[in-house]
Amino acid sequence: MSDSSPIFSKITLIGAGLIGSSIAHASRRGGLANHISAYIPRDETRARAAKAGFADSLHADIASAVAGADLVVLATPIGTFGEITKQAAPHLMPDAILTDVGSVKGAVVRDVSPYVPAGVHFIPAHPVAGTEESGPESGFAELFDGRWCILTPLPGTDPAAVQKLKDFWRRCGSDVEIMDVQHHDLVLAITSHVPHLIAYNIVGTAADLETVTRSEVIKYSASGFRDFTRIAASDPTMWRDIFLNNRDAVLEMLGRFNEDLAALQRAVRWGDGEALFNLFTRTRAIRRSIIEAGQDTAEPNFGRLSRQRRVRR
Amino acid sequence: MSDSSPIFSKITLIGAGLIGSSIAHASRRGGLANHISAYIPRDETRARAAKAGFADSLHADIASAVAGADLVVLATPIGTFGEITKQAAPHLMPDAILTDVGSVKGAVVRDVSPYVPAGVHFIPAHPVAGTEESGPESGFAELFDGRWCILTPLPGTDPAAVQKLKDFWRRCGSDVEIMDVQHHDLVLAITSHVPHLIAYNIVGTAADLETVTRSEVIKYSASGFRDFTRIAASDPTMWRDIFLNNRDAVLEMLGRFNEDLAALQRAVRWGDGEALFNLFTRTRAIRRSIIEAGQDTAEPNFGRLSRQRRVRR
Repeated sequence: MSDSSPIFSKITLIGAGLIGSSIAHASRRGGLANHISAYIPRDETRARAAKAGFADSLHADIASAVAGADLVVLATPIGTFGEITKQAAPHLMPDAILTDVGSVKGAVVRDVSPYVPAGVHFIPAHPVAGTEESGPESGFAELFDGRWCILTPLPGTDPAAVQKLKDFWRRCGSDVEIMDVQHHDLVLAITSHVPHLIAYNIVGTAADLETVTRSEVIKYSASGFRDFTRIAASDPTMWRDIFLNNRDAVLEMLGRFNEDLAALQRAVRWGDGEALFNLFTRTRAIRRSIIEAGQDTAEPNFGRLSRQRRVRR
Repeated sequence: MSDSSPIFSKITLIGAGLIGSSIAHASRRGGLANHISAYIPRDETRARAAKAGFADSLHADIASAVAGADLVVLATPIGTFGEITKQAAPHLMPDAILTDVGSVKGAVVRDVSPYVPAGVHFIPAHPVAGTEESGPESGFAELFDGRWCILTPLPGTDPAAVQKLKDFWRRCGSDVEIMDVQHHDLVLAITSHVPHLIAYNIVGTAADLETVTRSEVIKYSASGFRDFTRIAASDPTMWRDIFLNNRDAVLEMLGRFNEDLAALQRAVRWGDGEALFNLFTRTRAIRRSIIEAGQDTAEPNFGRLSRQRRVRR
């Protein structure tokens, strides 16, 4: 395969928020498709997508959106995937690849598989990338650069179709990993879902206090709290659906978190400085590994300070 | 008072890590002192401070460091303040201001007050600013710009001395707030100490899993987890001392966090999508308020992406 020829004739995005519109931008950057269409049923959102200008055609009906598409990407909140696949199924082209970008894979396989027509290659996928923004204006071509995309093909899936989707994601800028569905959901529960849950939780706790005012929480947030508010500003519908659909793995990982927090709370109560110091030293090493792996910036405060600094030493 | 004349004849920093060295840089930027000295007993650290070049004199003994200083700033981990004040006391100049930068105020008042000589003005302070870095190389003049500095003067403190310290922090770039000692510790428990505790905790939990490898945690950290590792990379000694010295307020706020997390866990278990959606919507508003208050960047992903993007739309 040449590295500059289109991989797909027509890509259809089902929904075009942050991830969908970023796929469109990345596809255009890489010349990965001859045509990009998007199915956006809501008039207001479709108008915003038109203004953002990342698609060649926008559709209020799913039949025309997917007609002739050799790649269809489910990019709405995961709770909608089953119904949408059911509606799209009669219009899918034989040999098309149907994929998704959901943060949970078990529930997606459960909901989507029953409706996939024979001859269509269903390959669940999860680009591990994002920001706290949402909507068709929030996407950009570089979102996937240097990030991982996890494919969780089911046993028996056509290897050529899997290879084609791998190539697509690589040319969107990602590294690609193949993983088992259940293992994906466990990995993401600890790297993404539980972190979001506890960020949402502490922001809620702080907002509800009587002894500390909301204005104080906001004024002094630079001492740590503000970091959590970024994650806790993520799209509510998307995240509701994630927690409703990855319950078992989230509860398992949350159980571990709670167990460890109880031990840490006990160390605080009993003044066990050694236990605290040992944990705080161990966690530093993880940060270094993430920076070395290119998964975060080495700049202090995520680089927020470089805008604050007028002169750098 | 002119806005360009020095406020102090000689400032002495007791310790010069991130905060101490940043005070030196900010003092130089603002012309706030005729001389900046630093007491750094460890040879290796003193050599690093010499190389960083933010002080006019560096001292291995405390007597020469504080001689003639009209402002002395305790900027070591808070567990050391009592002993250091005891050692410095006989050498403090009458009418000097003794202050600190500790993240806890009740324990600092408890530990320092007994050793403050008559005629010396002890005014506890807390600049609410920082990065995850530490050491004499990590400071910079702009750290305090637009951040809050909280003073917690004790009843009966000379108002002129408090005003002088307020002026100093304003000219370091900060907004200044006066607060009661106990209330400070409660506010910081929720805005800083508990957020750090749960960040340290989840990083520890993720590192200890058997079912998900450390390499997986690192690779997929961009989905949320990496944000917590920044905070969990903060200085272990400093943070051990904070938890050992703000126990009651931390346990109180942690109790609230745990209570709320139990309710959230229950909502996940029973599939209460409405409860999840309502919380996730409320927390978004707090993020907006923090950005409007100038306490964080509005750029997605803390602006990390602006380095990733080659072209911005």
